[in-house]
Amino acid sequence: MRFVAYQDETGAEAVGRLDGTRVHRLRGTDRIDRHTSTATLRDALPDDEGVELDGLTLLPVCRPQKIFCVGLNYRAHIEETGRELPEYPVLFPKFASNLIGHGAAIVLPPESAQVDYEAELAVVIGTAGRRISRDDALDHVLGYTICNDVTMRDFQYRTHQWMQGKAWDGSTPLGPVLVTADELDPGKLDIALRLNGRGMQSSTTDRLIFDVPALIEVTSRFTRLEPGDVILTGTPGGVGYRRDPQVFLTDGDEVEVEIGGIGTLRNTVRAEG
Amino acid sequence: MRFVAYQDETGAEAVGRLDGTRVHRLRGTDRIDRHTSTATLRDALPDDEGVELDGLTLLPVCRPQKIFCVGLNYRAHIEETGRELPEYPVLFPKFASNLIGHGAAIVLPPESAQVDYEAELAVVIGTAGRRISRDDALDHVLGYTICNDVTMRDFQYRTHQWMQGKAWDGSTPLGPVLVTADELDPGKLDIALRLNGRGMQSSTTDRLIFDVPALIEVTSRFTRLEPGDVILTGTPGGVGYRRDPQVFLTDGDEVEVEIGGIGTLRNTVRAEG
Repeated sequence: MRFVAYQDETGAEAVGRLDGTRVHRLRGTDRIDRHTSTATLRDALPDDEGVELDGLTLLPVCRPQKIFCVGLNYRAHIEETGRELPEYPVLFPKFASNLIGHGAAIVLPPESAQVDYEAELAVVIGTAGRRISRDDALDHVLGYTICNDVTMRDFQYRTHQWMQGKAWDGSTPLGPVLVTADELDPGKLDIALRLNGRGMQSSTTDRLIFDVPALIEVTSRFTRLEPGDVILTGTPGGVGYRRDPQVFLTDGDEVEVEIGGIGTLRNTVRAEG
Repeated sequence: MRFVAYQDETGAEAVGRLDGTRVHRLRGTDRIDRHTSTATLRDALPDDEGVELDGLTLLPVCRPQKIFCVGLNYRAHIEETGRELPEYPVLFPKFASNLIGHGAAIVLPPESAQVDYEAELAVVIGTAGRRISRDDALDHVLGYTICNDVTMRDFQYRTHQWMQGKAWDGSTPLGPVLVTADELDPGKLDIALRLNGRGMQSSTTDRLIFDVPALIEVTSRFTRLEPGDVILTGTPGGVGYRRDPQVFLTDGDEVEVEIGGIGTLRNTVRAEG
């Protein structure tokens, strides 16, 4: 099943099941968050008639308490940064307030001159757990979606810690849809990013150094994962900062991240006014 | 004014104003979080009779959405790590689920053999804001409290990013009291840590490289600060990891962090069973 989060005609948050191009609103579930289990979505009673997806204002597909980002998780991206292959995933945070929906503008803040894209598979947790084993990990997944892990490179490298380059409000598209875990093998997905139609990143998730079960095992070792929490699994090679010449997002750009079996996350870029 | 968060006789969360040794429960405010403004606390109508502080089970004094930690912010601590003085604060996260109250046990997880203490002044936000200027910064502070920024050193240094050493559930005492911003100058406080009665850290907050207004300015540049959010301002020299021989927390230890004008945050250490 596929779900979207959107604004209803009053501006309130809503969640709907997507069947073809129709969105059938769920009763009793306004957002995918810490109160949302796999059973919540499976057993929901969507309205019969539905509305057309086209024209809806989409929101970030879930509202996490915690967002774990993983750096340097594709071999080609590590090679372009000149680093060693890691023995433990490189972890850093984003915040829920950083997220925007499919179709919303990625904001270029006036403070940064190096805003970059990163195509990523996003894992949404559906069943809480601590110290989840690799074997049990996929049972804790609600579903998968797409993220553009937009990064302010000039802030990322101000110190050896990256948070201030990753956690800008209004920067990070998440969506357009959540595809439930039963419909996808997260280890066999094509992932690509296009900037104004030009291919910039292209890989497959079988090239992840730490796969989805490993990332759930590692993060849940230190903190309890809750429904709605998100793990961003890292980006392939081809980011703008590592190109020669470098490429950064500019006002009016269109960025698309496509993952096979999920769809395409499309956003324009707007300078903050 | 001074406030505590505690469990009432039913186990529910409560907030009370502390007058001497009596805790007067606030009506309509069960926790200090994103719904709590400076006016909420100032205008609250506490119950008249109150209960004795002694014997209450205290909780983390607030429930933040975001916790910003600052590394390497006292000159003596930087010198012991052998690093250069930073031009921008070193930022990394903790999560609300990491927090525990005064008197609760600091949990030693079986996965870590290097659990260390860090005495820190904690700033609690009371008025939301983005891009807060240095001059306006202290107007956004609800109050101050004490944190022991407990850190799993063997996890902190697994990669060049520190999150997995900082974000363990049940690790991080915050309290015992929130002292409102009108009662303290955050730049002139004595700060000390004792382990089983032995002095391990001792400094004053006028030695902070990035002071409280600077930290509010820097963090609010990239994300909106909300009421209840916490900034941990960094720890002085004397952490266990940098001692010779090294010192780590062990089952049964008692750790006290004392900050002048606020009080003493005291916790025992217990191996996770």
